[in-house]
Amino acid sequence: MKKSSASMGRRRSLAFALLAFLGLGLLQAAAGRQAWADSLPSWNDGPAKAAIVDFVTRVTTEGGPDFVPAPERIATFDNDGTLWSEQPLYFQLIFMLDRVKTLAPDHPEWQSEEPFRSVLAGDIKAALASGEEGLVKLGLATHAGMTTDEFDKIVTDWLATARHPKLKRPYTELVYQPMLELLAYLRQNGFKTYIVSGGGIEFMRTFSEKVYGVPPEQVVGSSIKTKFEIRNGKPVILRLPEVDFIDDGPGKAVGIQKFIGRRPIASFGNSDGDQQMLQWTMAGDGPRFALIVHHTDAEREYAYDRKSSIGKLDKALDEAQARGWTVVSMKEDWKTIYPPQK
Amino acid sequence: MKKSSASMGRRRSLAFALLAFLGLGLLQAAAGRQAWADSLPSWNDGPAKAAIVDFVTRVTTEGGPDFVPAPERIATFDNDGTLWSEQPLYFQLIFMLDRVKTLAPDHPEWQSEEPFRSVLAGDIKAALASGEEGLVKLGLATHAGMTTDEFDKIVTDWLATARHPKLKRPYTELVYQPMLELLAYLRQNGFKTYIVSGGGIEFMRTFSEKVYGVPPEQVVGSSIKTKFEIRNGKPVILRLPEVDFIDDGPGKAVGIQKFIGRRPIASFGNSDGDQQMLQWTMAGDGPRFALIVHHTDAEREYAYDRKSSIGKLDKALDEAQARGWTVVSMKEDWKTIYPPQK
Repeated sequence: MKKSSASMGRRRSLAFALLAFLGLGLLQAAAGRQAWADSLPSWNDGPAKAAIVDFVTRVTTEGGPDFVPAPERIATFDNDGTLWSEQPLYFQLIFMLDRVKTLAPDHPEWQSEEPFRSVLAGDIKAALASGEEGLVKLGLATHAGMTTDEFDKIVTDWLATARHPKLKRPYTELVYQPMLELLAYLRQNGFKTYIVSGGGIEFMRTFSEKVYGVPPEQVVGSSIKTKFEIRNGKPVILRLPEVDFIDDGPGKAVGIQKFIGRRPIASFGNSDGDQQMLQWTMAGDGPRFALIVHHTDAEREYAYDRKSSIGKLDKALDEAQARGWTVVSMKEDWKTIYPPQK
Repeated sequence: MKKSSASMGRRRSLAFALLAFLGLGLLQAAAGRQAWADSLPSWNDGPAKAAIVDFVTRVTTEGGPDFVPAPERIATFDNDGTLWSEQPLYFQLIFMLDRVKTLAPDHPEWQSEEPFRSVLAGDIKAALASGEEGLVKLGLATHAGMTTDEFDKIVTDWLATARHPKLKRPYTELVYQPMLELLAYLRQNGFKTYIVSGGGIEFMRTFSEKVYGVPPEQVVGSSIKTKFEIRNGKPVILRLPEVDFIDDGPGKAVGIQKFIGRRPIASFGNSDGDQQMLQWTMAGDGPRFALIVHHTDAEREYAYDRKSSIGKLDKALDEAQARGWTVVSMKEDWKTIYPPQK
């Protein structure tokens, strides 16, 4: 039977559509590979980047020996020194010091009471010399005594106006561009990314979603006790001057089990306070990944490790070297430190 | 210019493709509506089902006045009496009693020590008469003193073999079919579903993902303290005989803020222990939904409310009626109670 030209035309259209579809598929596949290779553009090609990409490829390769189902792809990140800077002082500590100054007019007794007196006199070194007891006093005086909604507003307002003493940028811009890319790359690959930090849980939750893409329910941190009550007919949650949980060192493994209830397959830290989190992560079955950010870049950021009072990296560095955990040298491995200025 | 028949054919193909596409669109829309109407097949048509569907439709209608972005669609569910049965005793309490019997040979002192003596004599009433202090003793004796991995195995093994005294089915089958459908319906509509229960967090996490589709990291519950340690060169988390957090009553609002850090827009409970969770949920801005499961079905399940020692529903029922919260009558609103027997 002779084919009509209309039917020929339809055939040709179909063939064309099929080719276009296949062509598009190939283009998309190529674009996919491209996107994949470009997911970490601020990382120099080197062993750290290669180890990350190798791990992610292995756990996401269906049918492969190291495949991990998506719900089990939990990755936990320390915050201070791992996702954002922590020098010359932890940023939340700077918030505390600023807050003491703001609240001082209502607390005449602070003029003679340490560590408040030293803070108000601008002698931070003396204030910090009061040790953990003094820090807890500062923390409770500035973090308790208001509702959770009020605290959220206090922190948000502070972050909007405060500037880093040396870099003169908002603290939320002093986040590591390579780590932002890593967070996004993991999420693109089905990971659920968590923050597990010694920092205050409610402090971090005010910016974690906007800055890191990590929603409040995926933030684990240190906390004070709280209390539900009805105030003027409306329920509020009050922040109480009593420590509830310290999410640091062994507390990080405890916090992970308490809040997540599932062992991460990858963890990222930068100090001895992250060592137990990394140990807990690596001790599980199946493929595992541990990474330490080593602050080696005095020029673009800060250089410190074994002898630093902030972000001390000593035992965890030894363990990383002994066990072959990935150690990132900020100087060698990162093309850039911070996102471009806005 | 005269059109060639090939070009005519191509035109007709395009028109056909367009029509087919539109037709397919209409079919898909119809199928969507069908799937949507059928998401709650175990719910009778009535005010409760209508209120649920109306709320979900409003918060998911883009551009509508009540639209809520997906990340804020947090829904919290009580467990005992809301997602599964809680009579004649909370199932975790039955686990505790069974566990006391299992452990008794290693604890000769329990033969003379209350409330253990009564439990071992089979006098549950006398054991429970010891009140909260006795319950805490039973809880700590059966829930502490092992690693988290060991506890997970103990609970999993118990759930696999234990049977409900009256219904003779595994406890994990005594979950409410209409609530399973509701959980799935909410998730289909972009909600993140959480359990917020007075029950033990690690107890529930052993089955929440399999039974409810709720992953361990979305379970909030009561807890005991834990401790990280290295045992035979391997990190473990030990369960300690000390209460850490009671996730009940006002504790549910506190637990939500602590674990989720974001106020739910919908909450589901069945007892006075859920009242503050519902209050906290309803006090937020924008569209809100509160639902109480009322146990009214003595024939298919149990009927109890204001005078029950388990799952007492009194003040929360008054508040639900005063504020127009949705109250589900199990007898009237549910076509079926449990999933079909396996």
